[in-house]
Amino acid sequence: MPYISVDENLPGVRALLAFRPETATPIGALAEILLRSSDSLSRADRELIATYVSSLNDCFYCNHSHGEIAVCYLNGNRDLVDSVRNNYQDAAISDKMKSLLQIAGKVQQSGKSVSPADIINARHQGASDRDIHDTVLITAVFCMMNRYVDGLDAYTPQDMSSYPLRAKQIVEKGYGNHVFLQAQPDKE
Amino acid sequence: MPYISVDENLPGVRALLAFRPETATPIGALAEILLRSSDSLSRADRELIATYVSSLNDCFYCNHSHGEIAVCYLNGNRDLVDSVRNNYQDAAISDKMKSLLQIAGKVQQSGKSVSPADIINARHQGASDRDIHDTVLITAVFCMMNRYVDGLDAYTPQDMSSYPLRAKQIVEKGYGNHVFLQAQPDKE
Repeated sequence: MPYISVDENLPGVRALLAFRPETATPIGALAEILLRSSDSLSRADRELIATYVSSLNDCFYCNHSHGEIAVCYLNGNRDLVDSVRNNYQDAAISDKMKSLLQIAGKVQQSGKSVSPADIINARHQGASDRDIHDTVLITAVFCMMNRYVDGLDAYTPQDMSSYPLRAKQIVEKGYGNHVFLQAQPDKE
Repeated sequence: MPYISVDENLPGVRALLAFRPETATPIGALAEILLRSSDSLSRADRELIATYVSSLNDCFYCNHSHGEIAVCYLNGNRDLVDSVRNNYQDAAISDKMKSLLQIAGKVQQSGKSVSPADIINARHQGASDRDIHDTVLITAVFCMMNRYVDGLDAYTPQDMSSYPLRAKQIVEKGYGNHVFLQAQPDKE
């Protein structure tokens, strides 16, 4: 049960965003820009980074929410998302994405864990300044979101069939508050 | 030296924000709302939480930037800010603030580290839902900002006389991008 009084019809972070709409607006805007840009890194790449970091932070809600969004962008390839979570080095992703996930794994521990060698490796695999910037910031943002959700013990749906439904909604409508702040049916 | 090509005249996070103005706008807006609201928690309280978390994350730039802003709000009482960093249980702050810093210390590790007992303790000291929400979100935001700054190895001024000057600027003008994105003299 959440540690503060929130709308019990809203799952996960949505209830927290509805509790404090003033902070919800910039958080939604940040997610929209970082996760739905598709220059250089694709939307699937961005959601895979978010999923991987949420998995490392053991945040069930964000891990499965963003994992399902990645599945949508990957045309239903849930095995690929699972392989990124479990052992990205063996996943069927580009060497550039592997080098960026290596950076993400470091940033999840601490910003100071990133080494010049991690950056050199990413550049060697073709990563641009923008790719490196966005990888670090997406990771940092999910280190925020995961703590926000679990630190307030937000309601985490256990019915796994609800995650693909919400994912479809985000894919269609984005991270604007019109999506975040509305109670959504968990079943169609 | 930063891992990506940024304006070398801008210290710390400011260079990163200038690199990607699209994400700078919501980040600035989030900081403005969370750190400059003064309902229930004062601006000094909010900056003390930001400083404490940045100190736990060992982020020199954020620790000293926000520490100096707290000093401004506390009429120059740098000893109080240092005591919050070093041992807040013995600092001359309210029991409510101590209970909120206890929650912040847990969230800095992981959202899952917060226990119902931490929340009960904070409520016993008079903390409201809003106080608890804002403490968790400020902590989460600084777990993001610290990783953003150190994960990209942003330029960290070593001249300690530059921090009070920038702090004064934030106290006067806030976290809007007009402040963040301008090169500022490190000395008056």
